Amino acid sequence: MTSVDVPVALLGYGTVGSAVNRLLVSNADEIERATGHRVRVVRALVRDPAAERDFLPDPGILTTDFRAVADDPEIRLVAEVMGGLEPAGEHVLELLRSGRSVVTANKQLVARRGGELFATASAAGVQLRFEASVCGAIPVIKVLRESLSFSRVHRVLGIVNGTTNFILTRMEHGAAYAEALAEAQRLGYAEADPTDDVSGADAAAKMAILATVAFGTRVTLDDVWYTGIEEIAPLHMRAARELDMAVRLVGAATLVDGRYDVRVQPAFVDRHHPLAGVEGPFNAVMLQGDAIREIMLEGPGAGGLETASAVVSDMISVIGTTGTGFLQNDACWRELERLPHGDVVSPFYVHLEVDDRPGVLADVARRLAAHEVSVARLVQHETGEGTAALHIVLHECRSGALGTALAEIAQLPETRQRPTALPVISDRGVPGLGWA
Amino acid sequence: MTSVDVPVALLGYGTVGSAVNRLLVSNADEIERATGHRVRVVRALVRDPAAERDFLPDPGILTTDFRAVADDPEIRLVAEVMGGLEPAGEHVLELLRSGRSVVTANKQLVARRGGELFATASAAGVQLRFEASVCGAIPVIKVLRESLSFSRVHRVLGIVNGTTNFILTRMEHGAAYAEALAEAQRLGYAEADPTDDVSGADAAAKMAILATVAFGTRVTLDDVWYTGIEEIAPLHMRAARELDMAVRLVGAATLVDGRYDVRVQPAFVDRHHPLAGVEGPFNAVMLQGDAIREIMLEGPGAGGLETASAVVSDMISVIGTTGTGFLQNDACWRELERLPHGDVVSPFYVHLEVDDRPGVLADVARRLAAHEVSVARLVQHETGEGTAALHIVLHECRSGALGTALAEIAQLPETRQRPTALPVISDRGVPGLGWA
Repeated sequence: MTSVDVPVALLGYGTVGSAVNRLLVSNADEIERATGHRVRVVRALVRDPAAERDFLPDPGILTTDFRAVADDPEIRLVAEVMGGLEPAGEHVLELLRSGRSVVTANKQLVARRGGELFATASAAGVQLRFEASVCGAIPVIKVLRESLSFSRVHRVLGIVNGTTNFILTRMEHGAAYAEALAEAQRLGYAEADPTDDVSGADAAAKMAILATVAFGTRVTLDDVWYTGIEEIAPLHMRAARELDMAVRLVGAATLVDGRYDVRVQPAFVDRHHPLAGVEGPFNAVMLQGDAIREIMLEGPGAGGLETASAVVSDMISVIGTTGTGFLQNDACWRELERLPHGDVVSPFYVHLEVDDRPGVLADVARRLAAHEVSVARLVQHETGEGTAALHIVLHECRSGALGTALAEIAQLPETRQRPTALPVISDRGVPGLGWA
Repeated sequence: MTSVDVPVALLGYGTVGSAVNRLLVSNADEIERATGHRVRVVRALVRDPAAERDFLPDPGILTTDFRAVADDPEIRLVAEVMGGLEPAGEHVLELLRSGRSVVTANKQLVARRGGELFATASAAGVQLRFEASVCGAIPVIKVLRESLSFSRVHRVLGIVNGTTNFILTRMEHGAAYAEALAEAQRLGYAEADPTDDVSGADAAAKMAILATVAFGTRVTLDDVWYTGIEEIAPLHMRAARELDMAVRLVGAATLVDGRYDVRVQPAFVDRHHPLAGVEGPFNAVMLQGDAIREIMLEGPGAGGLETASAVVSDMISVIGTTGTGFLQNDACWRELERLPHGDVVSPFYVHLEVDDRPGVLADVARRLAAHEVSVARLVQHETGEGTAALHIVLHECRSGALGTALAEIAQLPETRQRPTALPVISDRGVPGLGWA
């Protein structure tokens, strides 16, 4: 291979953008070895060229004018690392339309407008890659598309938000929610306004992207049902510990009989399940499929350098595969329907606060049984003032049936507060190990 | 893309070979979507065409004559799934020389003759891929080469042998070594002759391949120092549990100041380290590098279907990237020296059996201190008959210094048996978590 200079542009030159440029400069030899090309940032779009930056580009590279990127015919590849829906979306669309390949780290953009973006890229015959939009440096998109394209992945389980995983890990070690959140903010794992993370919305966008690639059908953010960790209390942590489980915010994408379900919610995870071992700000994605059984990828989920690493990997893949048509664009090839919300089957953990007197447990058990929901394990604690906390692990049941049973239980005169139900994840069956 | 038929051949049609054919047939549409090609097995080399097989190929495909493969100009891609060094090695070399790309699942071949194979492939301008030679369906080679090519991976830690990991997990749950081995054999995780697995030799071949790809320098099986699990006893399991650690057979490839070290040995792994959570016959590989911090991949390490899945992934990648020159052949681009054996630095666990009387501990501590080896934690147990077991966790030290200190301690009159030393793995530092 003869070395050829490849001029590229960046949209955005903040933490991620400057780390991308630093990686491109410091690894120029490695990249040339892999691709036969020397990559060079010739233009970077910013709002304020005078702002302080980690790794300064050469003079004249920074510009506030998108036209300086869009109208430069020399630029064939652009990395979008500015974030936000607009103007990022319109910029990416214009670049694709005019024949530039684009690498993006923008999960909101891919999760909300993926269909339009990929259609535009396909029509123009260029590539759109988005590894950095999900789980930082963990190459889950490449693995799904290139190694498991034929593996019929039917389930994706993910801890895809490092902020909430950090908070839950701290709570496991005894911290209160507010205290753990404050620590996450101090360490830079959480934003000043943490809503997007703690509500599950950030994880939902990532799960939409993962489900789209895994199942080959378009799943947008609107198709994902999610709840966050705001209502997880120390009592849930204690109950999980007693049941030998951990509490994690888990994204689950499931394909059942040609219909899909994607949701994000706090879950009780068996201590022996690999996801329970994911601690602190780390991310992990478990892929379950016919030929592979299950593969888990774990690593740092965020961080400017980690995200930049994924962006640069994608840039190298674009440069290395241009002209082959190999696995470059839309992963969607079919239209699948969503599974009705209540039809998802799982074991569950349920927490009830009830009057501490004879007959109450029988009442609860009867209501569950009436909806074919059966109890696997139960721990009861007196909580004082005549009330008791029931921590119940249920066998697999339809979430809809459980919802109906819990609505009835909530109406019982002896029920003191709204019941909580969280899914339980323990479905790794390996013969010879002492757990199901 | 227009669909084109790609005729391929298999060398070997046993468990893996028949699973490869089954995957190619049952996923023909998925593969065509990914590559634009329909892949078809037109020839499979076997020893006995009459043997019973899982998934029969079309009539006339099985042959006992290698020439029927080598002399068929239609065949451009061959998967070697016969195993063994010969005749597999000569067959692969001839196919590469004559312009065929080859995908192999043969770790012994790649670990011992990689240099020759890759040189031949490069000279002929064809691809040689080997994902299936390491850790079954876990796409660690693709991730290292395509996603982390520029990440300067400086450490690879791996549980790369499922048999020994299954045995150690069973021992953790109370089984004796012989009992756990018999169970592994009954479940098909261990061969009738388990030497290759329990001695660490199988893991060593895989670590040689991983180190070669990660560090870009040729590491052969002879460059790997290894010991197995035959001497791991219940007393080590108990000691590990008391120290909140797990015992795992760990492969460690390390790059320090431009020199490398690759070794396989039983290690004590901190319970909070992700490798401690790898249970039963599963494999895991942790990659540590500058830009990625650390990424772990976990999955089933063996099994015909899992290995076949990796073979088919490689076949798809060959077909999808032919003509690009992108990351296809020898990962080696430099020659690095080995680090002297004793220069590797690690924390260690040490087990000593000594006379149970005053002054013995002081003697031991003095010998350690004389070689700048310092104690982090110590647990002492009376073992009866006037002896005591010392379980010591040391701070980081040179393995050579520890070896010298232990040789001196072995000579002390109060020492009752040869000391054991195993490395300790706990080096995952995440701020805000309660462990180092």
